[in-house]
This record gives sequence, structure tokens and C-alpha cells, in this order.
Amino acid sequence: MENYGIVIHGGAGAIQKEKMTPGKEFSYNEALTNGIAIGNEILKNGGSALEAVEKTVVFLEDCPLFNAGRGSVFSHEGKHEMDAAIMCGKQLSAGAVTNITNIKNPIALAHKVQEDGQYVMLSGRGASEFAKSNKMRFMPDAYFYTEQRFAQVQKAIKSDMNPDLDHNLNVEAVNKFGTVGAVALDQKGNLAAATSTGGLTNKKYGRIGDSAIIGAGTYANNETCAISCTGYGEYFMRGVVAYDISCLIEYKNLSLEEACELVINKKQADLGGRGGLIAIDAKGNIALPYSTEGMYRAWQLKDQEKQIKIWS
Amino acid sequence: MENYGIVIHGGAGAIQKEKMTPGKEFSYNEALTNGIAIGNEILKNGGSALEAVEKTVVFLEDCPLFNAGRGSVFSHEGKHEMDAAIMCGKQLSAGAVTNITNIKNPIALAHKVQEDGQYVMLSGRGASEFAKSNKMRFMPDAYFYTEQRFAQVQKAIKSDMNPDLDHNLNVEAVNKFGTVGAVALDQKGNLAAATSTGGLTNKKYGRIGDSAIIGAGTYANNETCAISCTGYGEYFMRGVVAYDISCLIEYKNLSLEEACELVINKKQADLGGRGGLIAIDAKGNIALPYSTEGMYRAWQLKDQEKQIKIWS
Repeated sequence: MENYGIVIHGGAGAIQKEKMTPGKEFSYNEALTNGIAIGNEILKNGGSALEAVEKTVVFLEDCPLFNAGRGSVFSHEGKHEMDAAIMCGKQLSAGAVTNITNIKNPIALAHKVQEDGQYVMLSGRGASEFAKSNKMRFMPDAYFYTEQRFAQVQKAIKSDMNPDLDHNLNVEAVNKFGTVGAVALDQKGNLAAATSTGGLTNKKYGRIGDSAIIGAGTYANNETCAISCTGYGEYFMRGVVAYDISCLIEYKNLSLEEACELVINKKQADLGGRGGLIAIDAKGNIALPYSTEGMYRAWQLKDQEKQIKIWS
Repeated sequence: MENYGIVIHGGAGAIQKEKMTPGKEFSYNEALTNGIAIGNEILKNGGSALEAVEKTVVFLEDCPLFNAGRGSVFSHEGKHEMDAAIMCGKQLSAGAVTNITNIKNPIALAHKVQEDGQYVMLSGRGASEFAKSNKMRFMPDAYFYTEQRFAQVQKAIKSDMNPDLDHNLNVEAVNKFGTVGAVALDQKGNLAAATSTGGLTNKKYGRIGDSAIIGAGTYANNETCAISCTGYGEYFMRGVVAYDISCLIEYKNLSLEEACELVINKKQADLGGRGGLIAIDAKGNIALPYSTEGMYRAWQLKDQEKQIKIWS
């Protein structure tokens, strides 16, 4: 049986170890454990990397712990404006949606855009129409409501705070959340990447971050690697982070780990960007660098035990 | 005096020479001539590359011949949904707007986003709010109306045609239009790129193309080059075209011309994408490859005569 593997993240940020309660830590570990199991099961049974990353991210979107899908943060206008993207490393085909509201699973909609093939990126009300005509599931606002997130945005608005990474908002010190993502290698040697997010708490003006941008927050190419990012989207977009790693491997012969380290801990650091990413290549090498206090993450490779981590 | 230069495009597409009337050709040549003069004057007087590309693209947006700003094509819903992006090669800072309506100069709004610095990419109604709070100029729908464009979209809707590149719609054979863009090198050695478009005629679902995507349709980096693309945006996004050229120069030591040729005539061709781009580097080298019948383009370098071309 060929090599296979999956890596997932639930966001990077100022996740302070000393403020994490055992109960909260248990919940995160449980969610990451269940998430990785979904993708691993698909890959073990010969399913595609694309299916594995989609189904895993759907699970993470349905979990209110993470800032994506159901657990999405509130924008300045009190809405949940979500972004997601998926890319197939075999065909270099991709689907992305941005500023969508009330869609239960943004990543499933992005996958539908990729399968449909006419467009790569749809936004706002137009993306909702595409979702309706493809019978995607919608949910009322109440489904996306969580008391903690509402408190976060109220605090942010009151203090006239700049929009911030979800994980950095100390409404309750332990309530750190973030973008979710998955990258996978299947038994046929195909790579795929998926990312989904509610974006920045208190974000304004229809802001689009890196998650839905092919090449910035999400990228997959069988010849190089699959990448899903989390962090300050503006810096990741300016650095074209995901494709930069792919190019460092393809054009400069860096290893996956060298390329990821260089981009996160040198190039992004120099630019002022903080965050992390997950990566896998066609040989099953993985990398999970981050420049923040922590990153919710998990991985499982063929014939190995699953690994779940929050800090180093 | 240091080297400087500017390159502009008015879109690539199936511009058939045998169907171009002398009158039409004169109008295009005149518009390109006047456009390049604006940027050249700024650069000659020591102005910044960023100002040169913005002011040149503003002129092209105001010209109804091109598919951007005033001359933007109609979307399926009969609206003008415009995208634009600008990037500064010195700071790697960028601004982009997408799915905006009734803004007179989308590139000026993108520049405002870049200057403001809080976000990189704004969309739709939210971007309009940002525009209002920054006192940008709005225009009524009638300003963007042109009979030819309206006939184009009516024909496209009637025939249930897929959305297409503006230049490929044979409503009137000579009426080929396209995305506009500019790249420049100023006397301080700074590079900048700007792209603006009305997108695809008959586009649906809030479709976003490559023009507003940093790394796909627009990119600038003083260490490598400045790029503005035109063509089938979906393929350019999947190929992360503009940043790919930058990486081929930085990581593989290709010349600007080699990198541009490889990406447009090999990598994009293999993927199925057609179009073109304009490029300039810090030494004043330029490249203007395209894989379509023609591309409206012009360039002017220090101490040289301006050049205006439609075909090879």
C-alpha cells in the first residue's frame, strides 16, 4: 500500500498555556482527534485527498470551538461572513468562496465551485445564488450564534479596537479560536488543501483574507506540496505564502521543511506577519511551522499513531 | 538621471486585424498614446512608480474603449461589477477591491486601500462604504452604459453563452476590449503594478477574476519585477501567474523575458489558459508576451520613443 497522510489545523495565535483549563484543552484535543480520524479513514480506504480534506474541514466547521462555519466570529456588522478555498494538486483546479453568509459548510460550497469548473472564486450574494442552485445547506443566523463570540465583537466595537485575530481577543483568556484547514496525500499520490474561516473579529468593509486566495492561504500541486495557512491574512496575501513555499521547493530545491521555515520564520517575520501553516508533500513529508504561541494541530501518517498538539 | 520606464496594456484577446477599421485603430492608438504619456510625464519628473501606474490606469478607466471603469462590460444581472488591484514593489504593500459598483475609478480606491494599510482586499457593499468614508467619486449607472456593451450582454444572455472574455464577443467584430493595466519603474528604482477590469461579459455569481488577486493578476517586488495580467482569469489564478514569474526570476535566475515566456506560452498554455501580461524589472527590462491574436499595449523607456502596438 502506498504512502498517505493528513495534517489539520484549528488556527494559530496567542494561545496561552497558563490560561488553558483542563476542560477546554480536553475539548480541543477531542475535536482535533475526531477531525483527523475522519480524514485518515477516507485515506486508509483509498479515498481521494480532495475528499479527505473536504470532509475533515466540514467536521471542523461544524464544531463551534473553531473560527469557521458554525463557530465563525462576528464581523463589525454583527454577521458571520465566511471565506473558504479548496485546491486539487493533480489538476491544479480550485474553488473559493468569500463573504458568504448562512451557508452551513463553506468548504463544501468551495468544493462545488471547483467541481463545476466554470469559475474559481465566487463572492457574497452571487455565491449564495450558486449555492442555492446547487442545493447547498443554509442555516439561520441563530445557528452561528455563540455567546463568547458575541461578547468578543461587542468588546471590540466598544473599545474601537482594530479587527484582530480571533485567538488574540482576551474576552475570556481561554477562548482562543482560529481558521481551520487540512492538507492530505492519498494513496494515488494526489495532494489537496482546504482552508475555511470566519476571518477577523470586528472586520469591516467586506474584507477578504488569505484563506480564500489561491496561492496565499491555500495551494496544492502534486509536483511540490499542499499548504493551508492561518494567521494575519493581510501579510500572508502580500507574501503569497502558500505558492512561495511551492516555488522554493520547485525552483530552489528546498525541502518542504526548509521552505516552510524560511517563509514563516524569516520572510513573514521580516514583513511583520505572524501565523502558521500546515504542509504535506507527495512523499509524505510534513511541516507545521508557526510563529505564534501556539497552533491547534494534528496529523496522522500511514502506519503511525495520530499526533495532537497545541504548543511546541 | 536614473533609468525609468512604463508599460501599459488595454487587454489581450481575439483582436482580428482584418476586421479592425482605420477609425477604430486610430482611437485605440490615440488612447494608448495618451495613456503612456501620463505615466511617462510623472516618471520623467521624478514621480513614483505607484503614482504613475495609478494615474495611467485612471485614464484608461475613464476611456470607454477599454473594459475597466467607464467602459466595463455588463454582468449577467446587467450591472458593472469591477475589480482592481495595485501593489508597491518597495514595501510589498497592496490594495485590492472586488465586485464594486458605481465607483468612478476602481484603481484609485485600490490605492486608497493600500495607503490605508489596515486591509489588503475589500469587496462589494463593504468596499463602497470604505469608498464613501474616503470621499471617493461615485457615478450613476448611466455613466457606465455603452450601447455596444449592452448589446454584447443581451446577445450572450439570449444565446445562453458562457461568460467570455470581452475581446472574444463578436457583436461587432471590431469591438474588442479588455482589462487594463500598467507597470512602472521610477528613478528611485521602485517598481509598481496596477490592474483594473470589468471582468467577463455575462459573468454570474459574484465571480472574482485574477486582476484583483495579489500574486495572480497583479504583483510588484523591487527585487524581481512588476506584472499586470490580462486573459482568462480562472487559469491565471490557478497558475498564480504574476508571482510565478517573480519566483522564476528570484529562485531560478531566469531573465524577465525567459520567465514571462515560460509562464504565458508554456505553463499557461499547458493548463489551457490564454492571455497576456506586461512586465518590467528594476533594470528597465520589459516583456509583453501574449498567446492571443493581439494585445493592446504601449511602452516608453527613458530616452526612447514611445511604442504603441496591437498585433505582433
